[in-house]
Amino acid sequence: MKAITSRDNPLYKRLKALAGSTAQQRRSGHALLEGLHLASAYLDAAGQPETCVVTEGALRHEEARAIVARIEEKRVLTLPDALFGQLSSVVHGVGMLLFVEKIEAQLPARVSTTCVVLDGVQDAGNVGSILRSAAAAGIENVFCAPGTAYAWSSKVLRSGMGAHFLLNIFEEVEPAGLIARLDVPVTITDSHGAKALYDCDLSGQLAWVFGNEGAGVSQAWRDAVTHRVTIPQPGGMESLNVAAAAAVCLFEQCRQRRAS
Amino acid sequence: MKAITSRDNPLYKRLKALAGSTAQQRRSGHALLEGLHLASAYLDAAGQPETCVVTEGALRHEEARAIVARIEEKRVLTLPDALFGQLSSVVHGVGMLLFVEKIEAQLPARVSTTCVVLDGVQDAGNVGSILRSAAAAGIENVFCAPGTAYAWSSKVLRSGMGAHFLLNIFEEVEPAGLIARLDVPVTITDSHGAKALYDCDLSGQLAWVFGNEGAGVSQAWRDAVTHRVTIPQPGGMESLNVAAAAAVCLFEQCRQRRAS
Repeated sequence: MKAITSRDNPLYKRLKALAGSTAQQRRSGHALLEGLHLASAYLDAAGQPETCVVTEGALRHEEARAIVARIEEKRVLTLPDALFGQLSSVVHGVGMLLFVEKIEAQLPARVSTTCVVLDGVQDAGNVGSILRSAAAAGIENVFCAPGTAYAWSSKVLRSGMGAHFLLNIFEEVEPAGLIARLDVPVTITDSHGAKALYDCDLSGQLAWVFGNEGAGVSQAWRDAVTHRVTIPQPGGMESLNVAAAAAVCLFEQCRQRRAS
Repeated sequence: MKAITSRDNPLYKRLKALAGSTAQQRRSGHALLEGLHLASAYLDAAGQPETCVVTEGALRHEEARAIVARIEEKRVLTLPDALFGQLSSVVHGVGMLLFVEKIEAQLPARVSTTCVVLDGVQDAGNVGSILRSAAAAGIENVFCAPGTAYAWSSKVLRSGMGAHFLLNIFEEVEPAGLIARLDVPVTITDSHGAKALYDCDLSGQLAWVFGNEGAGVSQAWRDAVTHRVTIPQPGGMESLNVAAAAAVCLFEQCRQRRAS
């Protein structure tokens, strides 16, 4: 275990730059895991983190100590509260965070089971909520097209509540390359002239494509569509939030499978 | 139309204080509406705003000008861009916002149609998404218990996308008072020992209660429950985001009504 006490320490400076920039995290494929739940899920799923940063206070916290005990000593850094505070976005946290490489699987050669495609979903809260719904619905693979929020950003991780460790998440996946690998029909939600969700047979395998909050699904995916479904809305609104719509679609599919 | 050019103007100082504090907006029952869509929906639903603030640039924008034309001249203030920027949270907006009193209906004597109760939902994005889903599902009344995010905060308004003007929203509604007015059974989602959502008859009128993101539904509402339902989740997650769960419940009810 190594102690850093100066803000001019080069490793501290590097961690601080990384903590402060989601763009830099995305470029280098890194993530910051805050909270005991995410830290322990990462250790289970992926093994050793690059660096574990703790305060002296955290080392007196039983659960935090149990997690630190699972990490090779050379990877653990202790920091004074003031320096730690500049890395963390959590206000009353336990004082521990992991710097990790994000978990990245190789793009499958063929996709033949139900999957989710995020086609430019921008809001981190929406991405996290959809990942959580997908994991709850028993989906394995989520493909994120360019323009989608970085799936391993702190905000997506927080709202995903551990879904990241139950899913394979692929990022910066270009539509053409993925469409060529799909053995399942492409399904999008569309309010115009589409078939009501409840009247479609969803009991088979599908690729659900959910689009950008403003612009919807991009042309490349529209051109590849097999099923266009709509969620009938008896009230006066024109559309649902994308994460709400995704939940309705994924769980209507679960309902139909359960019934059949 | 009045022009303010000094940041020391008392009215400007008051607007700036209000714009900077959701707590103050809640205390005084005010809201800031940004964007042409929300502004025009407010004028349709409630009439004159307290104050309309515009930049010179906005007055050259056709749609913004059409909205300003609907507002009594004495209520319109022009501001230089720099002063306007300190009131607005939108980066590339058109340069117009309305300071309004929130729309508040009187608590109904009896509640006999399907309604939504937000029992301490804290996240503004979740509250906005649930309001949007409720409006899309054709629900009329939403009751917010103490501890729920201020429904007329800028963030909730933004994610509600106009739902505020299709719903009656009641805030700071104490459970006991509301429970006494309910003629419809109270329904909560619960993962333990509850009946699967799809196996419940939801075609009648219900009060849906959605609880806090961490703690769930409070004891007062648990004690008043008639139906406890669960959303079967074939994956390994334990729960859904509250706004996702609300969408699944509200649209399963729509599906059953449509089928029956």
